[in-house]
Amino acid sequence: MERQIDIEIRALKELILNMGGCVEKAIEEATQALILREPQRLQRVYELETKINEHHIQVDEACVKILATQSPLAADLRWIVATIKINTDLERMGDQAVNISHNGERYLTEPALKPLIDLPRMASEVRQMVRSCLDAFVRKDLALAEKVLEQDDIVDGLKNEIFDELRNYMVTDSTSVSRALNLILIARNLERLGDHATNIAEDVIYALTGKDIRHGHS
Amino acid sequence: MERQIDIEIRALKELILNMGGCVEKAIEEATQALILREPQRLQRVYELETKINEHHIQVDEACVKILATQSPLAADLRWIVATIKINTDLERMGDQAVNISHNGERYLTEPALKPLIDLPRMASEVRQMVRSCLDAFVRKDLALAEKVLEQDDIVDGLKNEIFDELRNYMVTDSTSVSRALNLILIARNLERLGDHATNIAEDVIYALTGKDIRHGHS
Repeated sequence: MERQIDIEIRALKELILNMGGCVEKAIEEATQALILREPQRLQRVYELETKINEHHIQVDEACVKILATQSPLAADLRWIVATIKINTDLERMGDQAVNISHNGERYLTEPALKPLIDLPRMASEVRQMVRSCLDAFVRKDLALAEKVLEQDDIVDGLKNEIFDELRNYMVTDSTSVSRALNLILIARNLERLGDHATNIAEDVIYALTGKDIRHGHS
Repeated sequence: MERQIDIEIRALKELILNMGGCVEKAIEEATQALILREPQRLQRVYELETKINEHHIQVDEACVKILATQSPLAADLRWIVATIKINTDLERMGDQAVNISHNGERYLTEPALKPLIDLPRMASEVRQMVRSCLDAFVRKDLALAEKVLEQDDIVDGLKNEIFDELRNYMVTDSTSVSRALNLILIARNLERLGDHATNIAEDVIYALTGKDIRHGHS
């Protein structure tokens, strides 16, 4: 017979997966709005964030309920603790998608500063990191979680290149300042999304192995 | 006789307080280095971050141990769950202090862009928020936690003013671009610190009342 805790953990996993799906979609809409110059997509981001916030509260409630009624141990306990943290990261990823939207809204009121440099590539790398860390969580895939950590270096490198290039634009053409600044802030938002995906990957590794690999530990 | 769980929670509280002390000090050193133009203070930030990261791991281990061995319920359980989250926010505040230091290091290689506008005031407001949310946590002070939430609006307002002013500098004087951009990124780091303090205040309110006030819920 299936244990009660397994039933509750399965329902919780479903909830996290739905939430992760909303986060992925919000990032997609926010970045595609920018790349395709389709501001009407941004409204969808705000709707998705509301859903993400509802999930945020539900996941926390479910975790506390399992802790209170099932007294999980060992791997189950690690999984619940990891889920509490992953939930926080997913919610903040929703906030970052909203930040991208706000900066994107301002950016899209002016003519394009072309090209968008490596921003589309950075957005695509970040979306892949988000997808991978969630897949690693669901499939209990340690190797995939470890791959997310490596990918974060690529994203950070792209951010630095984008920063340098946009800074040059601002110095040489004062009419580009406002737009270049918005793009710099968006690159920063994307970098933060990559950091959150990295945090989730670290939590997955902890849940699966009991090893805390943060801060070069263990 | 004192319950075993009370002894462990007291030790955990001590750990969080030490960690919070390191975070406060790191923010102080990072912002004072900038304001007083004393880059030698920044080394101290990096040392403090290492300490913060060590605490981060210890706090998580202590929380998991209490959950596994004491099966806490009701207020105790809420307190442990809140501590897991507060621990994450404190660690990321350490990261933000390091980010301020990196941006500050670059800023301090060039002559001052005077004035620093409202950055010193913003830094002081943020440091007060950090102090208040930790005091609220230790003293179980609900009113103080609620005050932190209000203070975040002031910090966000200051950030917007600082952004506008620095954007104008960049447009009118191309030699200011690099420095103004560094200050914009520092203002963004300070805003994030305020957000983390707000998250901690919300977790304190949850631990004390069982109410989840995030996302206008409750």
